Amino acid sequence: MTLDDDLCTRPATELAAMVRGREISARELLDAHLERIDRLNPTVNAVVTLDADGARAAADAADAALAAGEDVGPLHGLPVAHKDTHATGGMRTTWGSPLHAETVPLRDELVVARLAAAGAIRVGKTNVPEFAAGSHTFNPLFGATHNPYRHGLSAGGSSGGAAAALAAGLVPLAEGSDMGGSLRNPAAFCNVVGLRPTPGRVPTWPAAMGWSQLSVQGPMGRTVADVALQLSVLAGPDPRVPISLSDDPARFAAPLPERLDGLRVAWAPDLGGQVTVDPAITAVLAPSVAVFESLGAAVEEDCPDLSGADEVFGTLRAWLFESSFGEISRRSPEKVKESIRWNAEMGAKLTGPDLARAEQLHTTLYERMVAFFERYDVLLAPTTQVLPFPVEIEYPTEIAGVHQDNYLEWMRSCTVISATGCPALSVPGGFTDDGLPVGLQVIGAPRADRRVLEVGHAFEQATRFGERRPPV
Amino acid sequence: MTLDDDLCTRPATELAAMVRGREISARELLDAHLERIDRLNPTVNAVVTLDADGARAAADAADAALAAGEDVGPLHGLPVAHKDTHATGGMRTTWGSPLHAETVPLRDELVVARLAAAGAIRVGKTNVPEFAAGSHTFNPLFGATHNPYRHGLSAGGSSGGAAAALAAGLVPLAEGSDMGGSLRNPAAFCNVVGLRPTPGRVPTWPAAMGWSQLSVQGPMGRTVADVALQLSVLAGPDPRVPISLSDDPARFAAPLPERLDGLRVAWAPDLGGQVTVDPAITAVLAPSVAVFESLGAAVEEDCPDLSGADEVFGTLRAWLFESSFGEISRRSPEKVKESIRWNAEMGAKLTGPDLARAEQLHTTLYERMVAFFERYDVLLAPTTQVLPFPVEIEYPTEIAGVHQDNYLEWMRSCTVISATGCPALSVPGGFTDDGLPVGLQVIGAPRADRRVLEVGHAFEQATRFGERRPPV
Repeated sequence: MTLDDDLCTRPATELAAMVRGREISARELLDAHLERIDRLNPTVNAVVTLDADGARAAADAADAALAAGEDVGPLHGLPVAHKDTHATGGMRTTWGSPLHAETVPLRDELVVARLAAAGAIRVGKTNVPEFAAGSHTFNPLFGATHNPYRHGLSAGGSSGGAAAALAAGLVPLAEGSDMGGSLRNPAAFCNVVGLRPTPGRVPTWPAAMGWSQLSVQGPMGRTVADVALQLSVLAGPDPRVPISLSDDPARFAAPLPERLDGLRVAWAPDLGGQVTVDPAITAVLAPSVAVFESLGAAVEEDCPDLSGADEVFGTLRAWLFESSFGEISRRSPEKVKESIRWNAEMGAKLTGPDLARAEQLHTTLYERMVAFFERYDVLLAPTTQVLPFPVEIEYPTEIAGVHQDNYLEWMRSCTVISATGCPALSVPGGFTDDGLPVGLQVIGAPRADRRVLEVGHAFEQATRFGERRPPV
Repeated sequence: MTLDDDLCTRPATELAAMVRGREISARELLDAHLERIDRLNPTVNAVVTLDADGARAAADAADAALAAGEDVGPLHGLPVAHKDTHATGGMRTTWGSPLHAETVPLRDELVVARLAAAGAIRVGKTNVPEFAAGSHTFNPLFGATHNPYRHGLSAGGSSGGAAAALAAGLVPLAEGSDMGGSLRNPAAFCNVVGLRPTPGRVPTWPAAMGWSQLSVQGPMGRTVADVALQLSVLAGPDPRVPISLSDDPARFAAPLPERLDGLRVAWAPDLGGQVTVDPAITAVLAPSVAVFESLGAAVEEDCPDLSGADEVFGTLRAWLFESSFGEISRRSPEKVKESIRWNAEMGAKLTGPDLARAEQLHTTLYERMVAFFERYDVLLAPTTQVLPFPVEIEYPTEIAGVHQDNYLEWMRSCTVISATGCPALSVPGGFTDDGLPVGLQVIGAPRADRRVLEVGHAFEQATRFGERRPPV
C-alpha cells in the first residue's frame, strides 16, 4: 500500500481538515483518488461515469478559493461520486437504463447541489440496478458492480456502486437513496456505513410525489462520523419540499459520544421471528451486540409488532412503480426489466380503498414504533438476511432452506423498517469466518437520526470492524 | 347590554389577563357566559351539549390554583367549547350523526387535551353538519345553527356552531377543523376569525391516516390576536403525529404588528376567474383591500395558477370519505346523509393510478404556490362565494346566475386553497348594505402561519369590522 492508498482510505472528516489546514491541496487529494479509480475501478465497476477533467478544474478552483482566504464549506475539496439515479447538471445520468443511456440533465437535483455548495468535488456517478430497483447492482448498460471484499460477489444495492466505491477507496464521500434498503444493504455488503434518514430529513427535490415517505436520499461513508458530517450538509428544510424537517442540521456535525451509559437497547436477531436470517449472520452479530453492554447500555431481546409492514411497503411500492414505470412498461415492455414490469402491474391493479387501508396500517405501525421507542432508545437488527451472493444471480431464492418468492422477499429485514418511518443506520457488524462483512442495523424513533448516529459511532469505535479494508 | 354582556364580547387575550391578574375570578367569568348561553343559545343553537356543573367545578379549581400561587397556562380560566366532531373524554361527542347520539369517548383527543392543559374550562360542544360534511351546519340530532347576525340564515360550517358561539358571546374561545373551508367559511358568515393552519401545525391525534394533508384542526376567535394566542397552545410537535411541524409554538403569542410597510400583497377577487363570486361580496371587499395600501403594503391584482386544485381536492376528499364512510354507507345507507354517500361512492371508484395522478398534481400545485410566494407575501381572496343563505336550503344551487352542480361546488373559494397546502385565515372584511358580514381570506406560503396572522391583525386593527357585534 502506497502513501496515496493510505490517503484514500482515511475518513472524510480527517481529509476535510487536511485540505482546510492546507496540509494537502484539493488537487493532490483528487489526483490520488483518480489514480486509484484508474487502477481499481476496472475490477470493482463502481464508478460508471467519470469526469476527471471537470473534477481537476473544480479542485484547482477549490485550492484557489482557499488561497484567497474565502469562506469554504465543510466538505471543501473532498471528491464525491453521485448515485446514477440522481440528476447531475451537465453530467450523464442513466438510471442504469438503456432508455437514459444518453440523458444529460440540465441541472443538479437538490442532494447534488447541496454537496456542491458544501465544497465537494464531483468526480462522477456510481452504478445502480436498472431504475434502482432491487438490492443487487447490475444493469444492461454497465453490468454488475463487484464486492471489493470478494470479486464475483454482489456489492448489494441499489446504492451498490456508492458502497463499493467507498470500500475500495475510490472516493471518501458518496450518497444514495433508500426505498427498501438501498442505503443499508450495500453498506452491509461492503463494510461501510449507510443511513436511511427519517423521511424529510434530507429533502428530495424534484420529486413527483412530494408527500411520499417511502424513498429517501441519504449519506454513505466509511465511518459514522463521515456520514454525520455529510448529513449536516444534506439535511435542513427546503421550501419546495412539503415534508422537509425544519431542525437545524448543524447538530449532526457535533462530536459523537464513545459511551452509551444508561441507553436502553432492544436486539431483534430475526425481527421477532418475522424474517429468515442466514445463521452465519446471526453468529457474527450475537457477540457484537454484547459489546453494547460494555459501553454501558442495557440490552434486551425484544422487537416491536411489525404486523402490517409488508402490506404497507408492498402496496406503496407497487403504487409508486405503476406511477413511475407503468406507462413505459406497457408501451415498450422490452425496455424495462421484468421485475419492474411485475411491480408496476401490481400497482395498476390497486384500488383507492387498497391504498386507504395501507395508509391506515402505515399510521398504526408508526404509532406502535413511537410507543416502542418510549421503552427503548434504539432497536438493533441484522441489516441483511443474506451474505453477499454471486453477481450472476438476480436475487437469492432461498435463505436457510426457506424459499424466497420474489425479488423483494429477501430484503424484508430492510423493507419492513422502511414502512415504519424510522431512521436506520447500517454499520459494520463483524466478519464471517471466511471474511465476508456483516451489517448491523441501528433503528431509532422517527426523527431520532442523531441518536442512531451516536449509537452507531460508539459501537464502531469499540469494535473497529470498519477499519478492516478490502485488499487492494 | 349589561356589564356581563360587555364581558362576554371582550377579547380572550383581555379576559385571560383579567383572570390571571385576579380582576375577575374564573367562576365569575364562567357564570357570565353560562347566563348568556341560557339566554341566547335557544335562538342561535350553537352549543349542543353543555356541562354547566362540570365547568363550574373546573372554574372553582382554576381559582383555587391561582389563589395557591400555582403556575397557570396561558388560557387559564377561559371558557371554551369544542367542535362536536372532536372527542371529549366523558362528554358526549355526536359528530352530528344519529349513529353517535349517545357516544361518550373515554378520553380527550389531542386538540381538546392541549386546550385543557393550557387552562381552558370546557363548557360543552358546538354544532356541526352531519360528520362535518359541507359548509352549512344542520343535522338530524340538533337541527340548524342560526347566524347571530340574522336569525334564519346559515352560520356556515362545518365549524358553524363554534363561529356562532363566538359571535354571540357564548364563549371567548372555540376550535374547529377544516377540510374544505370549515374554519374559514363559518368565520366569514359570522364575522369572526378562523385559521386553517398549515397541515401539521396543529397536530391531529388520533388520526386514521397520519400523513393526510387535507383536514386540519385549528383555532377560532373574535380577534386575530385571540386566534394567535390559541394557536400558541395548539401548535407544536407531538411524537405520535408524523407530519407535525417542530417549530416552537411560543412565537405565535408574540405581539402582532399594526403596520405592513413593504409587504407585497396579491389580490384575487375571483381567484383569477376560477370561481363565481356574489357581486355583493366583491363590492364589500374591493374598498377593504385598499386599506392595505394605507398600511404600507403594495397591492397588485394577481393570482397563482390553481389548475389541478379541483382534481386534487375532489379526489383526495372522495378517497377519505370512502375510507371513513364507505362501509357504513353501504351497510346502513339510511343512517348517513345523501351527500356523504355520494362522496363515498365516488371514492369507491378511485383507482391507485387516479390517486397517483392527484398526488402528482398536488405536488406541482404546491411548487407553484411556493414560487408565487417568492413574489408576494400574502394572497387575498374572498373567503366565500356567497352570503349567508336561508337555513332551510342544503346548499346554494346558484351564484350570480351560475348553477352549482353539487354541495362542494359553491365552496371552491376555500377548497382550492385547501388543495395547495397553504395556511389561510378568514378575517372580517366588511358588511353588505343590509348588514351581512363578509370574510376576507388571507393566504400565505406553506408554514407561514405567523405571516397570515400578522397581516390579518393589521387589517383588523385598521378596519375594526370585527367589533360590530350582532344585536343581543
